[in-house]
Amino acid sequence: MEKIQNDVDFFGDKLIEKIRFIGNPLCVGLDPYLDKIPPLFRDGPMTPADPRTAKATKSFLISLIDLLEHKIAIIKPQSAFFERMGWRGTQLLEDISSYAREKGLLVLMDAKRGDIGSTAEAYAQSFLTKDAPVKSDALTVSPFLGLDTLEPYIQAAKINEKGIFVLVKTSNPGSGDFQDMLIGEKTLFEKIAEKLEPLSKNFEAPRTGWSSLGIVVGATYPAQGESLRELLPHTPFLIPGYGAQGGAADDAVRTFVRGPNGYEGGIVNSSRAILFPDKGNTDNPKEWEMAVSDAIKHAVDDLKEALARKR
Amino acid sequence: MEKIQNDVDFFGDKLIEKIRFIGNPLCVGLDPYLDKIPPLFRDGPMTPADPRTAKATKSFLISLIDLLEHKIAIIKPQSAFFERMGWRGTQLLEDISSYAREKGLLVLMDAKRGDIGSTAEAYAQSFLTKDAPVKSDALTVSPFLGLDTLEPYIQAAKINEKGIFVLVKTSNPGSGDFQDMLIGEKTLFEKIAEKLEPLSKNFEAPRTGWSSLGIVVGATYPAQGESLRELLPHTPFLIPGYGAQGGAADDAVRTFVRGPNGYEGGIVNSSRAILFPDKGNTDNPKEWEMAVSDAIKHAVDDLKEALARKR
Repeated sequence: MEKIQNDVDFFGDKLIEKIRFIGNPLCVGLDPYLDKIPPLFRDGPMTPADPRTAKATKSFLISLIDLLEHKIAIIKPQSAFFERMGWRGTQLLEDISSYAREKGLLVLMDAKRGDIGSTAEAYAQSFLTKDAPVKSDALTVSPFLGLDTLEPYIQAAKINEKGIFVLVKTSNPGSGDFQDMLIGEKTLFEKIAEKLEPLSKNFEAPRTGWSSLGIVVGATYPAQGESLRELLPHTPFLIPGYGAQGGAADDAVRTFVRGPNGYEGGIVNSSRAILFPDKGNTDNPKEWEMAVSDAIKHAVDDLKEALARKR
Repeated sequence: MEKIQNDVDFFGDKLIEKIRFIGNPLCVGLDPYLDKIPPLFRDGPMTPADPRTAKATKSFLISLIDLLEHKIAIIKPQSAFFERMGWRGTQLLEDISSYAREKGLLVLMDAKRGDIGSTAEAYAQSFLTKDAPVKSDALTVSPFLGLDTLEPYIQAAKINEKGIFVLVKTSNPGSGDFQDMLIGEKTLFEKIAEKLEPLSKNFEAPRTGWSSLGIVVGATYPAQGESLRELLPHTPFLIPGYGAQGGAADDAVRTFVRGPNGYEGGIVNSSRAILFPDKGNTDNPKEWEMAVSDAIKHAVDDLKEALARKR
């Protein structure tokens, strides 16, 4: 885990080495549903515009990050849930991202940005530069507008030791509407993966061989994940849809491949199942801590067992 | 322009009636490039994190909106340029959007959001509800994740008299990478348009017949625009790429069709050519005002002449 002096520390290496050190690929998604924040943290009606709402959400997320420290490698804040609180939400996103990074967690910003030319540059500067307001280690981006629109993110990531995860096959029921359309013999999502292959290869990190350009592949589509792994052998996969969305642990790690410390190949995201376990809806701090710690342990063990079963 | 009491005022009607009243389809894109803000408004180094930067940008945009009042129907703030200033940028976006709406301008938020399920709902609540922090009349959204991911925006738009513009064929050079891929005999962008057709038809406004679900079609691809107009006869087109991006006025209005007051069918966006005319780079308020007013007049006349030439 030591950083070699005068060397660039690629996101691909930072991510995979951290997962090897921590021992599990769980990524916890920070999706602060306002109506689910436990009574313990509340100090008002939790309407998006009320300043007390951002304050309560901050206290909730800081306590959560404290419980995640040393347990997982990476968190994934979902920008939308912060944006709906307006500028106080953005301020909160800046604060909790910085706090998590100070605690040694990697921060993958789930903002799914996609725009052209200088606008894509402005988004890259919002998340992936050293003076970015929302300090992140990586960003989710959309490929739909074309490869030229991914360049500004890739450039910013290369200069600033960051990563990107490109949407390829998403976890929702309707993801097939366009992503599964057949271009000749291949689906659109496979075609996208083919075009990403040289870009991902070009961005492989020196120590682990894993790229700093990853893709998003829903745990709900494990067979499609396997075909994507064949196309992209050294590309980290962000695998949403595990947990509350219904993806099982074995499916979530289906695309993992053998590494020096066991199977590896990306991160498996769970949001609601960790943030809002049934017993966490309490105003007792000890009860809340226990409920969330149990939920973290449950997901970590579930994934570790699935990895141990792999062969 | 009178609103019928107890009736819903659809975005499709609001947009087209306002354009008929104003007499031109120009949309001005608010893309505040920090390094281009004229000396007149500056009070510091214009680095994104400096509070003076958001303040200078606000003063620039407020003055600009004052010049746009009564001259055009709609503005299109580009979210990325605000986000890169962090929470002060979000606050600024909230302020200038509200200011523009008070001045009678429609606000189309160009945020190109696209996400699944409850996250898409959170984005809809960020822009398209009555208590949204960033008050907008319409929002640009991406279809890539599937039709189910558009539903939350459509629902919010229906309830709150808002509109959406779905990305279909974008103006950038690489837009063909995926959008032009052939699904059988048709391109992906045509396939998307076909799937949007019933949704757009379902959302047609009663007075003008124009839908509150529009699409984005770059002025740089006029032939593709024509084929999209055939598929979507009552869908407003947001046409970016006119002006600085190289699209000519005749191409920009190519998809317009005859209406009661002349040709109509959407909005044509110009950003940099209006915001940053050469002579506007000054510290003289009168000179700046003149330069920007000239740029507005030039674009308005250019489009009106193109519409008059149509037959």
